[in-house]
Amino acid sequence: METTIRDTVLNAATRLYADKGFPGVSSREIAAAAGVGSDEISRLFGNEETLYRAVLEAQFGFYAATMSTVFDGDEVPAIKVELFARAMCDVHKQAPCFFPLLYRELLTPSPFFEEIVRKNIRHVAYLADNNFVKGIRKGTFKRGVNPAHATMYLAGMFHYYFLASRLAPGLLPETGSDEEYFSQAIAVYLSGVRKGA
Amino acid sequence: METTIRDTVLNAATRLYADKGFPGVSSREIAAAAGVGSDEISRLFGNEETLYRAVLEAQFGFYAATMSTVFDGDEVPAIKVELFARAMCDVHKQAPCFFPLLYRELLTPSPFFEEIVRKNIRHVAYLADNNFVKGIRKGTFKRGVNPAHATMYLAGMFHYYFLASRLAPGLLPETGSDEEYFSQAIAVYLSGVRKGA
Repeated sequence: METTIRDTVLNAATRLYADKGFPGVSSREIAAAAGVGSDEISRLFGNEETLYRAVLEAQFGFYAATMSTVFDGDEVPAIKVELFARAMCDVHKQAPCFFPLLYRELLTPSPFFEEIVRKNIRHVAYLADNNFVKGIRKGTFKRGVNPAHATMYLAGMFHYYFLASRLAPGLLPETGSDEEYFSQAIAVYLSGVRKGA
Repeated sequence: METTIRDTVLNAATRLYADKGFPGVSSREIAAAAGVGSDEISRLFGNEETLYRAVLEAQFGFYAATMSTVFDGDEVPAIKVELFARAMCDVHKQAPCFFPLLYRELLTPSPFFEEIVRKNIRHVAYLADNNFVKGIRKGTFKRGVNPAHATMYLAGMFHYYFLASRLAPGLLPETGSDEEYFSQAIAVYLSGVRKGA
């Protein structure tokens, strides 16, 4: 029961912080959305900072765990690039508040930016960079492409899609399904848009 | 003189809105940053909504104008892709508040989202999509890649870089100069990361 109330509060807080950002949300609002008293929130989480911290920890922990599993297997680097992209989409679907929370932290870093946001993003980037290095060594990927940049290109192709098409539907013309976007993005990333390149 | 005060207020407002978002900034704060009285702001711009609207109009107008010129010339589509990417970087350098304002609007759309943000972004996307279509017809770009998606891939590679490395320095490992990132991103986009693809 204790766990259930805690989760209900955490879920309500996650959604509100994703929608409005940490400075824009009061604990009274979270209590109302979770259907509990404000005193319940202080009892369970202490103050608003501790609650926000718990939200970030859960979200970025989930992100790091989901993305890390990609690099556990023994697939070849190109397949891992594909799994990496698909794992990003899984995070987007299973934790729809994660990306808005990340973008808000990038725009207005909280006191937890270093220890939670930066740490987890760098950890995943490190694994992806290493995979790219391995791919260069095996002759799959071009030498001359900075592995850290290569990770950002791929991440960027998906990030902007999440930001533009999910958060603001209708920003861009309707252009087929998510699945089509994801598959083509991976294919373009891996093989390029220029014929015979 | 009138123009100078107007510009000073507009510049101060642009920076503050980019840093904190529209709901987080008071006209008193803008007046203080601009070194004018609050009454001066109401005299010049009316209320806070009108001021914010003027900021968005100036920023998104600059974006649309800068990006549109790319498609005026008679270069081949692949060169225009490169000019498009470089124009994005120019906007980022010359109007460093533009991208933060765009991201904030995507996260929390204001009443001006449709008429200013969406309109200008779609206009530029439309030009870029058409260029890609032309490139497919000429046999430069792959058939089977959705032109609207192709524009998003390229935009995304730059957007995330601006977001991650500029707004939160140190988020990603130091990886060489901006110029290196941009050139490689364009090359990867145009030719792909897989050897012989």
